[in-house]
Amino acid sequence: MNSLAEIISHIEPLDQSLMDQAQQRLDSLTKPVGSLGRLEELAKWIVGVTRQERPLLSRKVIFTFAADHGIAYEGVSAYPPAVTAQMVYNFLRGGAAINVLARQAKAEVIVADFGVAADFGDAPGLVSCKVGYGTANMAKGPAMTAEQALQGILTGAKLAIAEKEKGAKLFATGDMGIGNTSAASALVAALTGAREEDVTGFGTGIDDEGWQKKVRLIRQSIVINGADGKDPLATLAKVGGFEIAGLVGVILAGAATRTPVLIDGFISGAAALVACRIAPQARPYLTLAHLSVESGHQRIARELELIPLLDFRMRLGEGTGAALAMPILDAACAIFNDMATFSEAGVSKKIIQ
Amino acid sequence: MNSLAEIISHIEPLDQSLMDQAQQRLDSLTKPVGSLGRLEELAKWIVGVTRQERPLLSRKVIFTFAADHGIAYEGVSAYPPAVTAQMVYNFLRGGAAINVLARQAKAEVIVADFGVAADFGDAPGLVSCKVGYGTANMAKGPAMTAEQALQGILTGAKLAIAEKEKGAKLFATGDMGIGNTSAASALVAALTGAREEDVTGFGTGIDDEGWQKKVRLIRQSIVINGADGKDPLATLAKVGGFEIAGLVGVILAGAATRTPVLIDGFISGAAALVACRIAPQARPYLTLAHLSVESGHQRIARELELIPLLDFRMRLGEGTGAALAMPILDAACAIFNDMATFSEAGVSKKIIQ
Repeated sequence: MNSLAEIISHIEPLDQSLMDQAQQRLDSLTKPVGSLGRLEELAKWIVGVTRQERPLLSRKVIFTFAADHGIAYEGVSAYPPAVTAQMVYNFLRGGAAINVLARQAKAEVIVADFGVAADFGDAPGLVSCKVGYGTANMAKGPAMTAEQALQGILTGAKLAIAEKEKGAKLFATGDMGIGNTSAASALVAALTGAREEDVTGFGTGIDDEGWQKKVRLIRQSIVINGADGKDPLATLAKVGGFEIAGLVGVILAGAATRTPVLIDGFISGAAALVACRIAPQARPYLTLAHLSVESGHQRIARELELIPLLDFRMRLGEGTGAALAMPILDAACAIFNDMATFSEAGVSKKIIQ
Repeated sequence: MNSLAEIISHIEPLDQSLMDQAQQRLDSLTKPVGSLGRLEELAKWIVGVTRQERPLLSRKVIFTFAADHGIAYEGVSAYPPAVTAQMVYNFLRGGAAINVLARQAKAEVIVADFGVAADFGDAPGLVSCKVGYGTANMAKGPAMTAEQALQGILTGAKLAIAEKEKGAKLFATGDMGIGNTSAASALVAALTGAREEDVTGFGTGIDDEGWQKKVRLIRQSIVINGADGKDPLATLAKVGGFEIAGLVGVILAGAATRTPVLIDGFISGAAALVACRIAPQARPYLTLAHLSVESGHQRIARELELIPLLDFRMRLGEGTGAALAMPILDAACAIFNDMATFSEAGVSKKIIQ
């Protein structure tokens, strides 16, 4: 799968026949029909995505992609741009929230540099996917070229497909990039037509004045670049980010390789929105791990009709919400695979059918 | 702790000083302050409950208590009363949802007979705490005597304290008993003054006609027994259940032994409501694992000001929602114990403090 068109051509609908079989099995297990609610729906979804009759998410991979953003130099973040690179080192040393939560979930974290404005040499554990040294300042012109956007997507997809070939059963998305909530808000506003102030949040913790400035710069970025959202790829180039492009690739590759994709917070959600605008048929392969505090995330959830698994007022990114939600997917598989049926257990069925 | 008064006398407020220290540590970790939202609050709560500076929920115990209900013979359930005993055997063989989910969460399930209308002999793995062979039909008179209610509570508490002495770090509640949503609805209506129809659900899956009959019988049970809710212990005796009494004991024992208590669904919630009416100081020791489909559960959550961790439209009981939520509590501890601080990781702090 070397071109975007080829990746997209591999995305098929979920297997409805296997999902019907899964429903029958769920209804035969020793519990009132449907009484495990969403957990049952998740089991059925995993069957439909993976085409496995008894699926196990035995190898889970979180793609935590890092990049810098030209807009950050306008002071739209509470943290200095240098923190992107510092946090990459924190990921590599295993001290960040995503490392801790991934260990809990028995997931691997693939940390990739998609465009940090720093050189990491051959830092052990870091995958270099560098598209540039940070995007250009989108408030003054396009964040990147169309070629770079495509390169980011294809590089992300290639990485994900390689992990699939090594046995990955679940993909999750994650991000790091000072300034990237500005890019995500701009993408959501451009792609959905939402007003900038309705999809712009406080990121890592700016104040009201900072927020007003952020909204103004996001609007300026959309206007100056003519990011009208009609062409998702062009919109990604104009107001997106390198790590977001990479995540678009992961999401499309997940759908193309029949891999469930667990979407993290706001940045990941923006990538999911771009991916589903490029290929709407990718949407059934996604589950939203949690609802971020960022207001734009709600808009994405509504737009893609994704109901978050968790609502914990998180706003960290990195893939933390996805890692936190993973045990729920494991539990769904376990229920499906391991529970006794009514006949196996000798339990009476319902009186009123 | 041999009397209810003695158990209650051991319930102290959470340790605010340790919680303040926990907050300081949380704010020093490499993430924007508060950006892990509820996960941080859970970590702080576990510190405040356990008084451990680096808490680990290394041994988790789910108390799945079973009992029969006289009201079930009125036909308020979609399943025959015999299913209570059949499901106990399913628990003992490990084929039920709670077994599967407990294995996922690395938790133990203590299956105890608090009053099933059957003899289990010396079935391996079953703890006998029998208070009776099912309650009496509450639509015709009190479900049990005041002595039985107290016996149920003290037996549950004793079991929980014994598990604590064996190293349990977390208690979770669970239930099995055909007809027990009727008892739970009656308790909620009597204790909160809610209208019966507002706190009565469809249990394991009755139809509209069955629901109307159920509401009528619950109202009749409250009226005939004069269950006005002023005395929580008397109310429990009049319209409760043996397994609910046992769970009240677990909850009070959890608070008395500084053990976090994870409350499952509707039946467990009714037990929590009774426990907090007996001893309001027990309330801070509780977290609500999930929001049940049963309408009465929402009322309990509002009454106790408990925000559920999950909202998955579950309605199975057994402790399944609690087991599903356990990895979240483990994750909270891991974040708190294992993340790097800003100074350890050499990451720049916020520009605007």
